[in-house]
Amino acid sequence: MTRALIPSPIVATIDFAADGARHGFLRLPYSRDDSAWGSVMIPITVIRNGSGPTALLTGGNHGDEYEGPIALFDLARTLDPATVSGTVIIVPALNYPAFRAATRTSPIDKVNLNRAFPGAPDGTVTQKIADYVQRALLPMADLVLDFHSGGRTLDFLPFCAAHLLPNPEQEARAFAAVEAFAAPFSVRMLEIDNVGMFDTAAEEMGKVFVTTELGGGGTARAATVAIAKRGTRNVLAHLGILSGEAEPAPEPTRWLDMPSGDCFVLSEDEGLMEPMVDLGGAVAAGDVVARIHPVTRAGLAPVELRARLDGLLVARHFPGLVKAGDCAAVVAVAL
Amino acid sequence: MTRALIPSPIVATIDFAADGARHGFLRLPYSRDDSAWGSVMIPITVIRNGSGPTALLTGGNHGDEYEGPIALFDLARTLDPATVSGTVIIVPALNYPAFRAATRTSPIDKVNLNRAFPGAPDGTVTQKIADYVQRALLPMADLVLDFHSGGRTLDFLPFCAAHLLPNPEQEARAFAAVEAFAAPFSVRMLEIDNVGMFDTAAEEMGKVFVTTELGGGGTARAATVAIAKRGTRNVLAHLGILSGEAEPAPEPTRWLDMPSGDCFVLSEDEGLMEPMVDLGGAVAAGDVVARIHPVTRAGLAPVELRARLDGLLVARHFPGLVKAGDCAAVVAVAL
Amino acid sequence: MTRALIPSPIVATIDFAADGARHGFLRLPYSRDDSAWGSVMIPITVIRNGSGPTALLTGGNHGDEYEGPIALFDLARTLDPATVSGTVIIVPALNYPAFRAATRTSPIDKVNLNRAFPGAPDGTVTQKIADYVQRALLPMADLVLDFHSGGRTLDFLPFCAAHLLPNPEQEARAFAAVEAFAAPFSVRMLEIDNVGMFDTAAEEMGKVFVTTELGGGGTARAATVAIAKRGTRNVLAHLGILSGEAEPAPEPTRWLDMPSGDCFVLSEDEGLMEPMVDLGGAVAAGDVVARIHPVTRAGLAPVELRARLDGLLVARHFPGLVKAGDCAAVVAVAL
Amino acid sequence: MTRALIPSPIVATIDFAADGARHGFLRLPYSRDDSAWGSVMIPITVIRNGSGPTALLTGGNHGDEYEGPIALFDLARTLDPATVSGTVIIVPALNYPAFRAATRTSPIDKVNLNRAFPGAPDGTVTQKIADYVQRALLPMADLVLDFHSGGRTLDFLPFCAAHLLPNPEQEARAFAAVEAFAAPFSVRMLEIDNVGMFDTAAEEMGKVFVTTELGGGGTARAATVAIAKRGTRNVLAHLGILSGEAEPAPEPTRWLDMPSGDCFVLSEDEGLMEPMVDLGGAVAAGDVVARIHPVTRAGLAPVELRARLDGLLVARHFPGLVKAGDCAAVVAVAL
Amino acid sequence: MTRALIPSPIVATIDFAADGARHGFLRLPYSRDDSAWGSVMIPITVIRNGSGPTALLTGGNHGDEYEGPIALFDLARTLDPATVSGTVIIVPALNYPAFRAATRTSPIDKVNLNRAFPGAPDGTVTQKIADYVQRALLPMADLVLDFHSGGRTLDFLPFCAAHLLPNPEQEARAFAAVEAFAAPFSVRMLEIDNVGMFDTAAEEMGKVFVTTELGGGGTARAATVAIAKRGTRNVLAHLGILSGEAEPAPEPTRWLDMPSGDCFVLSEDEGLMEPMVDLGGAVAAGDVVARIHPVTRAGLAPVELRARLDGLLVARHFPGLVKAGDCAAVVAVAL
Amino acid sequence: MTRALIPSPIVATIDFAADGARHGFLRLPYSRDDSAWGSVMIPITVIRNGSGPTALLTGGNHGDEYEGPIALFDLARTLDPATVSGTVIIVPALNYPAFRAATRTSPIDKVNLNRAFPGAPDGTVTQKIADYVQRALLPMADLVLDFHSGGRTLDFLPFCAAHLLPNPEQEARAFAAVEAFAAPFSVRMLEIDNVGMFDTAAEEMGKVFVTTELGGGGTARAATVAIAKRGTRNVLAHLGILSGEAEPAPEPTRWLDMPSGDCFVLSEDEGLMEPMVDLGGAVAAGDVVARIHPVTRAGLAPVELRARLDGLLVARHFPGLVKAGDCAAVVAVAL
Repeated sequence: MTRALIPSPIVATIDFAADGARHGFLRLPYSRDDSAWGSVMIPITVIRNGSGPTALLTGGNHGDEYEGPIALFDLARTLDPATVSGTVIIVPALNYPAFRAATRTSPIDKVNLNRAFPGAPDGTVTQKIADYVQRALLPMADLVLDFHSGGRTLDFLPFCAAHLLPNPEQEARAFAAVEAFAAPFSVRMLEIDNVGMFDTAAEEMGKVFVTTELGGGGTARAATVAIAKRGTRNVLAHLGILSGEAEPAPEPTRWLDMPSGDCFVLSEDEGLMEPMVDLGGAVAAGDVVARIHPVTRAGLAPVELRARLDGLLVARHFPGLVKAGDCAAVVAVAL
Repeated sequence: MTRALIPSPIVATIDFAADGARHGFLRLPYSRDDSAWGSVMIPITVIRNGSGPTALLTGGNHGDEYEGPIALFDLARTLDPATVSGTVIIVPALNYPAFRAATRTSPIDKVNLNRAFPGAPDGTVTQKIADYVQRALLPMADLVLDFHSGGRTLDFLPFCAAHLLPNPEQEARAFAAVEAFAAPFSVRMLEIDNVGMFDTAAEEMGKVFVTTELGGGGTARAATVAIAKRGTRNVLAHLGILSGEAEPAPEPTRWLDMPSGDCFVLSEDEGLMEPMVDLGGAVAAGDVVARIHPVTRAGLAPVELRARLDGLLVARHFPGLVKAGDCAAVVAVAL
Repeated sequence: MTRALIPSPIVATIDFAADGARHGFLRLPYSRDDSAWGSVMIPITVIRNGSGPTALLTGGNHGDEYEGPIALFDLARTLDPATVSGTVIIVPALNYPAFRAATRTSPIDKVNLNRAFPGAPDGTVTQKIADYVQRALLPMADLVLDFHSGGRTLDFLPFCAAHLLPNPEQEARAFAAVEAFAAPFSVRMLEIDNVGMFDTAAEEMGKVFVTTELGGGGTARAATVAIAKRGTRNVLAHLGILSGEAEPAPEPTRWLDMPSGDCFVLSEDEGLMEPMVDLGGAVAAGDVVARIHPVTRAGLAPVELRARLDGLLVARHFPGLVKAGDCAAVVAVAL
Repeated sequence: MTRALIPSPIVATIDFAADGARHGFLRLPYSRDDSAWGSVMIPITVIRNGSGPTALLTGGNHGDEYEGPIALFDLARTLDPATVSGTVIIVPALNYPAFRAATRTSPIDKVNLNRAFPGAPDGTVTQKIADYVQRALLPMADLVLDFHSGGRTLDFLPFCAAHLLPNPEQEARAFAAVEAFAAPFSVRMLEIDNVGMFDTAAEEMGKVFVTTELGGGGTARAATVAIAKRGTRNVLAHLGILSGEAEPAPEPTRWLDMPSGDCFVLSEDEGLMEPMVDLGGAVAAGDVVARIHPVTRAGLAPVELRARLDGLLVARHFPGLVKAGDCAAVVAVAL
Repeated sequence: MTRALIPSPIVATIDFAADGARHGFLRLPYSRDDSAWGSVMIPITVIRNGSGPTALLTGGNHGDEYEGPIALFDLARTLDPATVSGTVIIVPALNYPAFRAATRTSPIDKVNLNRAFPGAPDGTVTQKIADYVQRALLPMADLVLDFHSGGRTLDFLPFCAAHLLPNPEQEARAFAAVEAFAAPFSVRMLEIDNVGMFDTAAEEMGKVFVTTELGGGGTARAATVAIAKRGTRNVLAHLGILSGEAEPAPEPTRWLDMPSGDCFVLSEDEGLMEPMVDLGGAVAAGDVVARIHPVTRAGLAPVELRARLDGLLVARHFPGLVKAGDCAAVVAVAL
Repeated sequence: MTRALIPSPIVATIDFAADGARHGFLRLPYSRDDSAWGSVMIPITVIRNGSGPTALLTGGNHGDEYEGPIALFDLARTLDPATVSGTVIIVPALNYPAFRAATRTSPIDKVNLNRAFPGAPDGTVTQKIADYVQRALLPMADLVLDFHSGGRTLDFLPFCAAHLLPNPEQEARAFAAVEAFAAPFSVRMLEIDNVGMFDTAAEEMGKVFVTTELGGGGTARAATVAIAKRGTRNVLAHLGILSGEAEPAPEPTRWLDMPSGDCFVLSEDEGLMEPMVDLGGAVAAGDVVARIHPVTRAGLAPVELRARLDGLLVARHFPGLVKAGDCAAVVAVAL
């Protein structure tokens, strides 16, 4: 039996097709040492009113990123079906085991959900989630808004983003949605290695796919949560799902580009990282953006890490200690 | 043999009494499964020039706090003995096993060094470190500057602080050193439960003890590192150890008070924490400072956590998820 | 400062002295790597009406025993203060960290609460719980009913029990309460090694202390939960705290004795345990009560474990595999 | 090279074709950090006398289920070849690493052997075991008796079972063997999701496949062991392998059915499970079979779990705590 | 996209084609919970001078074997390009995560690199390393010298070895290189199960592949390191890459054979291993080479393990305790 | 109750006072999560014949040292009481949990038994073992022979040793026993830090205490086991307990001294250790005895570790990797 013919073991406890607001679960049977007949229960909400477009809103693709889950748990509870035309499918914590463990990857199989697409119905728990999204949720959606932040080990300037795509019409719709989101920054992304990403799966199906990076460090701030909430409603309004006007951002979004691998500043050494520039700071090519202090002795000179192009610091390694091979900082260029 | 008579097993590989700059180790023998005749090697630097006062500068009392270690590894390497009058003892990562593990407590014995004083020469590894500080380092010092930040689970507005003390003269000298440090904020602390703290050990010996909280989340920022570096040099200049003028802060420090247990906003529930106010934000008694969203289902109402007095938010729980019993936020009052 | 003078760090969030039903927590500050300012929150309920006697009802002394917690969480929610004369203090899961982890001992410090009395206010988390019981809860109580079952590794016939005591009057009151509990079996216990037990702490303070063993294996059955619920209400009625008549048991309780160490059948070998007699079965001295099959090869003869006196099987090792030194079975004698 | 051509790495240390009783091992080379040239040694016994049919008897497919291993280690040692006509292959603990670890799945690869068929000769350790059974043991067998019980997290009424099959003759032979086993209960099973099961592998090869559920909780009782021993000898007698009469059960077996997914009572909530009905108890549709008490606070109402059809309780979640998504109870219908 | 078309994610930070000595890394992106944008950094050195043959020298295929890494880190630092004609590619610790963890297999995926060939560009970390060797490094090489020792759980007489091959010319070149290595012992190996080995991958590509076993126990000795250093330079000289004469060994190498599975002495029992013969000792078929003492009781007789052919002891189980299924000793035959 | 009055919880299952050979256990009750009523069972053998002196022979004080346990399990089984005059108490694996885990310290409490004397009857498992030795076994003994080797992380030249003692008569008897043991090397030890050692406990009670270091690396060799067996019988013969002549060593023992802390060569750096001298090799002050290669990059120079006095190498760090603070080598001086 080929995989395409194996049914997903995941069962939704709610009806996607009925009007109104329904809260339920995606139930994924998971037999294990501590529960022979147990399941993973992924919360899901469907809010529907009539026959308009469908938006799929997802948080917790990585389990240690919080702006999306906060905005989406809140939206799931408060979105009035009467204000909706179409369908909003909300999965606030898509890799739910990772979300409960507060880890990037699933504690069950150590799989990064965002590299697991198209998944497998007879694979590991995370692969089964990817397969269900691929074969059950994505086909229903017109637009996907998948929330990311930096997680415990990265921190980002808050931005919304979409990919450069071969189909100009699809790309244009995606960038229009990014513009509607109205984050402080907006990014045109050229993904080098997009194998296995949720993004790729959705885009190959012709969907409008919008994503974000809204902070990081394994926390959320009131300011970044506000961006996530406003952006979500704005995108729904932009699609015509949500009635009412979009809420403008306090300042116009600033478009950024990551033109090449030179954006990334890598550390070849382990040690104590001293950031020399904070997020949003301007850097010129050759500037020291961080220093890596050896910690095995006092008195040793730090290694200096330098920017390779002019721009502003959009991301950085978050933990105080850095390991060899870690990305220490990312420099982006204003468009 | 009483503990006071048991010699410390820790041996310093450098001479505290000679002039110049010396980098070495506090070597603590530690026999264990993976090294029968192994040791913990704690880096230490002594910079001495003549007979002036002695400052003991310590970071890494908690192993996941980084402004102190960055400033002190940097100072140890760059402080020119010719600019010094007296002695500067620098231990950039006092609970070195915790620092290497990036954890608050020691991975060896799970002991919180800052509750382990006066320590024990025949105790666990962390208790031996405390005992060495108590009996070998503290007696040499006139002033102690012990760096703290929030660590992986708390985040703070950057402040320098000292305790209200029974001895007004000792207290005055401590607050003068805090003023000299010139952090953005300064705090007069009344410690409720000070048993076992490094602070208490030093103060009971009559030393001037100054501490900080300079950020948190298990990271450091360029801005907070700059505060730590400037403050350290300012305190040394204030003591007359470092020649030259103190560097003024960009803005005068703002003094704060934590008048009672009402400062602390506790969560009785576990869940996803939505901060409603960011660090430094003004709050009034009764304001919701955070909401705790249940995550076991979608559609459930969050619990609201409210401030109990007027002030500004000086600290908060950092991770996106909160456990029952965690301190969610701290409100301080301007003096 | 002697330990008796160190205040307990545990704070109750409710008032023990007011009338009515109150649900709250014993909050125990617990600073650790994953929460610098965290706490253990132990649920507690106080139900009070006027000035009658005080009963302290505790479950979860061991964290993998369930009849007590089920009966007590249920009682806490349903007991009407109007039916009470006096005070009922209910702590359904006393070693709360162990209860949440479903383990006998605390996952934090691996301490067995029932060997930790009188505890220590500056000790480990479990020692702090014992100290609070010793110094804050026990002095308020006239009677203690502390629920036990076999936990994950033992299984028991359901019985209520009290100890033979030097004070005949105190002993008589305890056995009267056991009789009132009306379990299927009742046991007069002579504890050989009672150092550190909750029982001993309470008895030395002159309290009436009643305990149970109501099943085991890390589960509960409808039948054993019913025994716990009925017994609890019967003891409260017996004390005059609960109005109304005691509910008689379906059959009179059968009193048992464990006269000596010969009751215990120990395995000196590890292997696969084949029980030859089930709980409640009659055995004669010399009977094989279990066989231990070696599992490293097929074809090896099992070791036979034999009863050393006549009686009935009141307890047994629960898991399918047995380790050298485990108690395989216990034989008690009818009185 | 396709997998079918890769030889199994497992080597049997005994000859399957010679008459008499032989005890040996299935040796599976397993190179790992703690033994570069190590092996998994799975005990096996072959008892053969002449050319009759072959029964394959297996226990320990899941490593925490004990009636099968006890009955089979005992049978391997005591079965006299002179009483046999044909061949009995006994593997008392098929997933031997899981059996030694007392866990459902293998501690080596976390694979559930009963979902690993047909296995892979170049896969993980558990997949290699499945492949050896598939390609070496199953082809030799006429009948397979594979013992199961509930394991550490489920408990069952004792029953023997076979599947509804597309081939009526094969199905009839299987149900006849179930009847011969003479357990207290017998079940006709319609497996919904049978991918990867040992059962399916054997049935697709045309073998008579009989299985059991004989208790659970990670233990065995004298009563359930007796059922397993009697059933094994009865099935061998039924096949004509063992001379002598079958031993009748004390009472005729009662046939049960699990007609649909409505048999299963699932908990959507985590908490403390209060069973309201014990195994074997009669239930009507709508009856509360269990209550799930929240444990984060005292005073909260439990969630009630209700039967969805009339019948008797044949299985239940065993541990005292339940997780969201666990099967709490199973209701079967008398035929 | 077939795997052959997926590019390796590994990037070399140095140029393989330029003359001179270059030290760099094979950088393997590895996103994980503790570093979202992290990498594995495998040190590599390329020393090139003109257009001669290319030798690929690898250590740390297994992470707990040390003669190779010591000789190769040393060679990488000291080999003067001026003395070279051709190219020397040095990877001192090929399975770098295993090498840092001092374990045979990778701590990341538990994969044995030497059974992972040809690897997979989209597989686990270890499979990605194998794939890079297969597709990027091997095609450049004329000869591969892959260092092994016994690791933590085996100990070997020091020998160099090559395989019997179907191509006599290729085989002859390999044995000539072994002879040039000039280890105390040399072995002609017939690999029974060579699926997935680095050796097989190289040999199938027509390369000359030479390997070693130079000691073991998870350590290195001055004497075995000297063998590794001398052998490496001798092989490079033999190939004409290194100018100068080969250094003769103190004594001529002794050629050994492992003619069949009878070489291996396996323990079916766990216990305390008493070696009766040390490495290099002469044994006759039937000699007791080790005794396995049971350790569960005193007074039990040990199991005796006997050699099955005449020869000398070339390898043994190293740790003091042995598990069932471990290889206790290996007997080889002088040619 | 002072500790001296608390009885040991350990019970011996055999009679120390009866003639003949008896094998049994020291049973130490140990309640834990995986066995509520479990025990540690330490094998012990007593061989007695009449009223002569008593020797206490112990192995496994550290759990990863094997010459002692092998010699003593063997002796316990084979020593004929008829050849004995007096009593031989044999505990082949004193820290039995550590011995089963193959670790230096106990896996239960991480305590090093050889630093736990005099122990505590109400302490951890290891402290209870020490207390039983102190209060029950030592008082019975005239001589103690406590076997040590290097364990997994050290390797030693084989020697027998005793301490310089304040009492010259006691010291002379100890060195006479060392001479009788007839190891290849004999050492006069001046213990700097002897707090908590078994040695000290025995010597303070006036006993003759003899110890050994017979190899290491977590293994045993035929040659070192032979030394242990011969030495044991020689010491028993020397005491007059064993009839017959002592077996002379092949060569006279060579006496060594460790005159000061200069014997110890410490590594301040972590890395890959290249030994430059093997055990028994002659070294002169200033010789490089080991080099520590950095492993984070290729091409870095190693750190050289030099001897500080003339002598021969008697011990070395065993694992291939070294940590900062490890003892890399020990140089002793011939007497």
